[in-house]
Amino acid sequence: MANEMKWSPSEKAIARKAFDLALQREFEAVIQEAKNRVARIDEPSKLWELEAYLTRSRKKIDNRYDYRYSMLPLVFTNLIVEGRLSLEELHGLGEDKLDYIRRGLSLAEDWAAR
Amino acid sequence: MANEMKWSPSEKAIARKAFDLALQREFEAVIQEAKNRVARIDEPSKLWELEAYLTRSRKKIDNRYDYRYSMLPLVFTNLIVEGRLSLEELHGLGEDKLDYIRRGLSLAEDWAAR
Repeated sequence: MANEMKWSPSEKAIARKAFDLALQREFEAVIQEAKNRVARIDEPSKLWELEAYLTRSRKKIDNRYDYRYSMLPLVFTNLIVEGRLSLEELHGLGEDKLDYIRRGLSLAEDWAAR
Repeated sequence: MANEMKWSPSEKAIARKAFDLALQREFEAVIQEAKNRVARIDEPSKLWELEAYLTRSRKKIDNRYDYRYSMLPLVFTNLIVEGRLSLEELHGLGEDKLDYIRRGLSLAEDWAAR
């Protein structure tokens, strides 16, 4: 269970670095998409589509990036599935966390293959 | 009283044209500001400031651009005060409407001078 895992100081440092890296990539992706959308605005409705896109992005980020240690293994699993992080960037975490994440990725692959 | 005014077909045509012109300028101003803001984004908080700006703009436009004939004299007065329309662009409206608008502009000037 993720909420029973212990995090050593070095694991916390690795987790923080990976979390911040993914969040930075997330913001870069949203900024790039906002730039693309603004460049394509040729009618008023596109303005409000941009607004709705930003609102969705903000809520998704608020929801996805939850830095409670009990949530981190699931957060990292989702970020890997979404391509914001690689398993290699979590190198140094304990086997309990990595095993939890690998099992989650395996489940996600099974679902995606359906 | 604005809600007792009669609108002739030619007045309605002039009003529609002026209304659409102001709305087009409004959209162009918001699009330009969105482009400026996107170009200046250098940190995530600016993304959400852009979102908030778009939300404010949408609500302001929904609120300001009210095409009921009973509201048009006030709508036009506000649009002139905000620089989206000139009195000259309402040329051809009856004196009852123009007088209402001129009195509104005069009041607005008095308030601004305080």
